[in-house]
Amino acid sequence: MGDYEKMSETSKTVKSDIEIAQSAVLKPISKIADQLGLDESSWEPYGRYKAKVSVNILSKMNGKADGKVILVTSINPTPAGEGKSTVTVGLGQALNKIGKRTVIALREPSLGPTMGMKGGAAGGGYAQVVPMEDINLHFTGDFHAITTAHNALSAFLDNHIHQGNALNIDARRIVWKRVLDLNDRALRHVIVGLGGRTNSVPREDGFDITVASEIMAILCLSEDIEDLKKRLSRMLIAYTYEGAPVFVRDLKVEGALTLLLKDAIHPNLVQTLENTPAFVHGGPFANIAHGCNSVLATKIGAKLGDYLITEAGFGADLGAEKFLDITTRAGHIDPSAVVIVATIRALKMHGGLTKDELKHEDLDALARGMENLACHIDTIKSFGLPYVVAINHFIFDTDREVAYVTDWCAANGHPVALSKVWEQGGEGGKELAQLVVETIEKEENHFKPLYELNDSVEDKIKAVVTKVYGGKDVDYSPKARKQLKSIKQNGWDQFPICIAKTQYSLSDNPKLLGRPKDFTIHVRELKASVGAGFIVVMTGNVLTMPGLPKQPAALNMDIDKDGNVVGLF
Amino acid sequence: MGDYEKMSETSKTVKSDIEIAQSAVLKPISKIADQLGLDESSWEPYGRYKAKVSVNILSKMNGKADGKVILVTSINPTPAGEGKSTVTVGLGQALNKIGKRTVIALREPSLGPTMGMKGGAAGGGYAQVVPMEDINLHFTGDFHAITTAHNALSAFLDNHIHQGNALNIDARRIVWKRVLDLNDRALRHVIVGLGGRTNSVPREDGFDITVASEIMAILCLSEDIEDLKKRLSRMLIAYTYEGAPVFVRDLKVEGALTLLLKDAIHPNLVQTLENTPAFVHGGPFANIAHGCNSVLATKIGAKLGDYLITEAGFGADLGAEKFLDITTRAGHIDPSAVVIVATIRALKMHGGLTKDELKHEDLDALARGMENLACHIDTIKSFGLPYVVAINHFIFDTDREVAYVTDWCAANGHPVALSKVWEQGGEGGKELAQLVVETIEKEENHFKPLYELNDSVEDKIKAVVTKVYGGKDVDYSPKARKQLKSIKQNGWDQFPICIAKTQYSLSDNPKLLGRPKDFTIHVRELKASVGAGFIVVMTGNVLTMPGLPKQPAALNMDIDKDGNVVGLF
Repeated sequence: MGDYEKMSETSKTVKSDIEIAQSAVLKPISKIADQLGLDESSWEPYGRYKAKVSVNILSKMNGKADGKVILVTSINPTPAGEGKSTVTVGLGQALNKIGKRTVIALREPSLGPTMGMKGGAAGGGYAQVVPMEDINLHFTGDFHAITTAHNALSAFLDNHIHQGNALNIDARRIVWKRVLDLNDRALRHVIVGLGGRTNSVPREDGFDITVASEIMAILCLSEDIEDLKKRLSRMLIAYTYEGAPVFVRDLKVEGALTLLLKDAIHPNLVQTLENTPAFVHGGPFANIAHGCNSVLATKIGAKLGDYLITEAGFGADLGAEKFLDITTRAGHIDPSAVVIVATIRALKMHGGLTKDELKHEDLDALARGMENLACHIDTIKSFGLPYVVAINHFIFDTDREVAYVTDWCAANGHPVALSKVWEQGGEGGKELAQLVVETIEKEENHFKPLYELNDSVEDKIKAVVTKVYGGKDVDYSPKARKQLKSIKQNGWDQFPICIAKTQYSLSDNPKLLGRPKDFTIHVRELKASVGAGFIVVMTGNVLTMPGLPKQPAALNMDIDKDGNVVGLF
Repeated sequence: MGDYEKMSETSKTVKSDIEIAQSAVLKPISKIADQLGLDESSWEPYGRYKAKVSVNILSKMNGKADGKVILVTSINPTPAGEGKSTVTVGLGQALNKIGKRTVIALREPSLGPTMGMKGGAAGGGYAQVVPMEDINLHFTGDFHAITTAHNALSAFLDNHIHQGNALNIDARRIVWKRVLDLNDRALRHVIVGLGGRTNSVPREDGFDITVASEIMAILCLSEDIEDLKKRLSRMLIAYTYEGAPVFVRDLKVEGALTLLLKDAIHPNLVQTLENTPAFVHGGPFANIAHGCNSVLATKIGAKLGDYLITEAGFGADLGAEKFLDITTRAGHIDPSAVVIVATIRALKMHGGLTKDELKHEDLDALARGMENLACHIDTIKSFGLPYVVAINHFIFDTDREVAYVTDWCAANGHPVALSKVWEQGGEGGKELAQLVVETIEKEENHFKPLYELNDSVEDKIKAVVTKVYGGKDVDYSPKARKQLKSIKQNGWDQFPICIAKTQYSLSDNPKLLGRPKDFTIHVRELKASVGAGFIVVMTGNVLTMPGLPKQPAALNMDIDKDGNVVGLF
C-alpha cells in the first residue's frame, strides 16, 4: 500500500511526456545540421524542427572513419515495455554531456498503436526526441509513402489479372496483402473484387499494418536508391497456376515503386530534449521483420558522430539477434558494444509476480528473475561483443532492489550502471555513458554473426533456438516442411532467417517467463521475404494487423483552435 | 493528313512538361514568402521549394482589403481536358507581367490518376506550378493525412460495433466507406470483418479514392481549425437499427480526426515556372463534391495579392456552379469575375466531330459547337458576374478557326482573348490578363447565388437544371424520393446542393454534346454530406474509385541513382 501511495503522490508532481516535450527549448533544425557539419545541399527542412538528410552524403564521406555503433536492447519485456527508447535517447544525451560527439538512431512510431494504446516510440520523460507530436503523427510522411507504394503494387497486381492475366497468376496464391498504418481488425481478412466484371476478380485478401510491409523492411535494409530498387524488383508477390514464383519485376513496376519512395529513403533528422542530433527513420516489426531503424540512418549517423546509439525492437532474443545476424550483414555495419536494458519490474515478473504485484518490493522474485537477464547476457557474449547492463530506474524501484541487481552483476562480472534518464535526462545517464565508453575501450570485440549464410535454413533456426533462446529442439508443421523444400528449390535458403516469436518469453509460449529450459520451438509456417532478403520463420500466431481497444487512446486526443495538441500521451 | 504531319513535326521540337519543369530556375520558397510579405513565423518550409502557410495569418490580416477573386472555368470538356489549370497558371503569370500583384490557387493532384493515366493537375507547357514531381507525388502529405483520418474513422466505427455496439449501429446501414488515394477497382466492393469473432463483424464495404472523401470536401470548405472540427463532428456515418442517424460526435473521435489534419489544413505554397506564388491545396471531386481548392488557400491568397486566380473542376455547369453556390457561401468569398476557357477542339466536338477528327480545320463543326460556349456564358451571366472568354490555343488550331471564335464573341458582345500560355508562359497571356483587369474595372458585379438556401431541395435542383444546364425537368427514382423525405425530416434541406453529373454534357447523358434542349435530369439517389454541408444529388452512375488502364502510366516511371525522375508525364 505504501508504495502505491508514494507513487500517486509522486505522480501529481510528474509532468506527462507531452508536457515535457512541449516545454522544451528546441534549436532550429538548421542549427542541428550545422552542429553535424552538414552543408545546405545535403539536407532539406520539413518544418523548422525536422529535416531529411540526403543519402548521397554517404559516398561523399567515404574516406571518413566510422563512429562506434552501440546497440541498445533489453531483457524480455513486460507488456508495458522497459523504456529501451528512453535509455537510447538518454544515453545519447549523456554521452554528449561527457564530451563525446554522439548521434542517435531510432525507429519511427506507427500511427496505429498511437491511436489505439497510449504509448509511442519517441522515448519518455526527459529523454525524448522532439517534436514528439509530429514524430508520433505523420512525421515526414515516410510511412504514408510506404503504404502507398505497397497498395499501388496490389492495384497493379489485381489490374494485371483483370486485364487478361498474361502472367497466368493464380489468384488463390497471391502472397502480397494490402496495408494501412492503422489498427483495424476488420481489415484482417477481406474479400475484394466483388460487384461484377468491371470490379476485377473476386478473391480473398487482407490488410496488414504498414510496419509489417516488406517494403518497410526493404527501406530499412537498403544501402542506397539502386539497392532499394533492386530489392523492390525481386519481391515475391504470387505464384502462377504452374507454381512458378511471380516477382515485382514481372509486372515492370519497380521504377514506379522506387519513385514513390524517393523522399522516404532519406533519413529524418530531429533532436532530443537536450538538442542531441537524432535520426528517426523506418520502423519494421521486430517479429516478422528485423525491427531496426534504417541502415542508412545508422550509417550516416556513424559517419557524423564518434558514437552512434541505435535500438532494436523487443528483447535481445528478437531485436538484437536480428540486428546482429540480418542488419549488420545487409548494411555492412560493425557494432562496438551492446547495452542490455533491464528493469526491476520486468525482472520481478520473470521471477513470478503478476502485473499487479510489480510495484511492491520483492527481493525473492527479483532474485528468481535474474536468470532472464543472464540469458540475454549470454546471447551477446556468444556474438563476441562487449556489453553493459543498464538498469532503467522507475520511481517504484526500492534502493534495496537496485542494490540487489547491481551486486548480482558485480558478482558475475557484468558491467552495470543505473540509468535515471527518464527523470533527469542526460545528467541521469552519465554513469552509464562513462561505463559504455570504458567498456568499448577496454574489452575486446570479436563480433561474428551466429551462423553462416550457407548453413541450411534448419541449421540456422537451430542455432538461434539453442544459442539465443536456450531451447532444446525445433519442430516443423507439415506446411512448414513443404515450404522449407520450396525455399531450397528456389535458392532462397542462402538468406538469413527472421524468427517471428512472442516477445514476452524466450520460448514460443508467452506464459513461460524467466529462463525456460528444454523447450521446443514450433515452426508453423515459413515465408520468403525475397526483397528484404530474409526467411520469416513463424512460431505461434503472429498478428500483423492489431485491433483497437474498447477505449482507444484517440478518445482523449484533441487540438485547440491555436493548434495546441492534447492527449497525445 | 497535312495536319497530322505538321503536328508530328512540331511535336519533335516541343519539350515534355517534365523536361520544361526540370529546366526551370526556381527561387527558394523563402524568397517567394518574402515576396508575399510573410514573416518567418507564418510559414514552414517543406524542402527548399515548398512551404505551408499558417491559417492563423488570416486573423492577423483582418483589416487588410481582399484582392479580386477570379474564377477560371470552362465549357464542357473533351476527355483530354481543355487546359483550365494551364490557363489559370498562365493568367497568374501574365497578370504579374503586366504589373498586377497576383497569387494563384489550385487543387492538389491525386496519386491515383497520376499512376494510372498520363496527366496531372499542375498546368502544362510554360504555365506550370513547380516542383511538379513533388506536387504530383506525395507533395506535403495532405492527401495521406486525409486518407488516414478517413480510415481511422472506419476503424473506430467497426471497433465500436465489435466492442459491444452500445450505439446500436445497424451494420447494414453504414454510409461511411473507406478510402485510398489510388486507382484500384478491386476495392470498390469488398466484404470486411471475415475470419471469425476476433476479426470484427462481417459486413459489406468499399473503398473510394481519397478525393471522394467527405473529409477532403470538409478540409476545403473549413474557415479555420474550429470550423474543421465542427464539420468533422457532424459527419453522418451510419444509422441505428431504429433508423436514427449516427454522427462522428457520437463516437467522440472528432478531436483525434482534427489532430490528424493539423498540418493538412495549412495551405501549401509553391511557385510557377515564372516564380508567381501559387497555393496548391485540397482537391475534392467536382461531381460528388464541390471541386475547388480550399477556401483557406483562396482567402489567404486574396489577402496577399491584388488578384487571386482560382479554378473549379470540370465545366461551368459543375465546377463554376458549385464554386458560386457552395464555396463562396462556405468561405464568404466575393468573386470579381469568371474566365471561361474554350478550346477549338472541344467546340468542334460539340459541333459533332469525333475525337479523331479534331485536328483538321472544320469551320462548320466549330460554328455548330459555339452553342455550348453560349450556354456557359449565360450561366455566368445568371450569377450576375463579369466574364471573359479565353481561347486556349493548341498547335493544331488554324488561324481561321481562331478568327471564327473571336468574331463570334465580338458579334455577341462577349469579351474574348487568345491564350498562348502553354507555348509562351505569361507572355502568351498578357492580352487575356489585360482584358480581365479591364472587365473587372468596367463591368458591374451583381453576384448572387442561383438559389436561396431555404428553397426546398427540389426547387434548388430545378433551378440548377433549368438555369445552368438548360434542361426542362427533373425526375426522381423511388429511392431518391424516399431520401428527399429523410433529408427534410433530419433538417438537412437547408444545405446547398451538389449535383454529380457527367462532365461531358450539359445533360446527364455524356453523348449529348453541344447545347441539348428539353431534356430531363434523372436523379437516382441523394446523399447528405452533413459535415461538408451539402446534399449530393446523383444522376447516372458516379464512379468514386477509378480503375487502372491496361498499360498504367506507372510502367514508364523511374528514378535513377542520382534521384532524377523520368516518365512522370
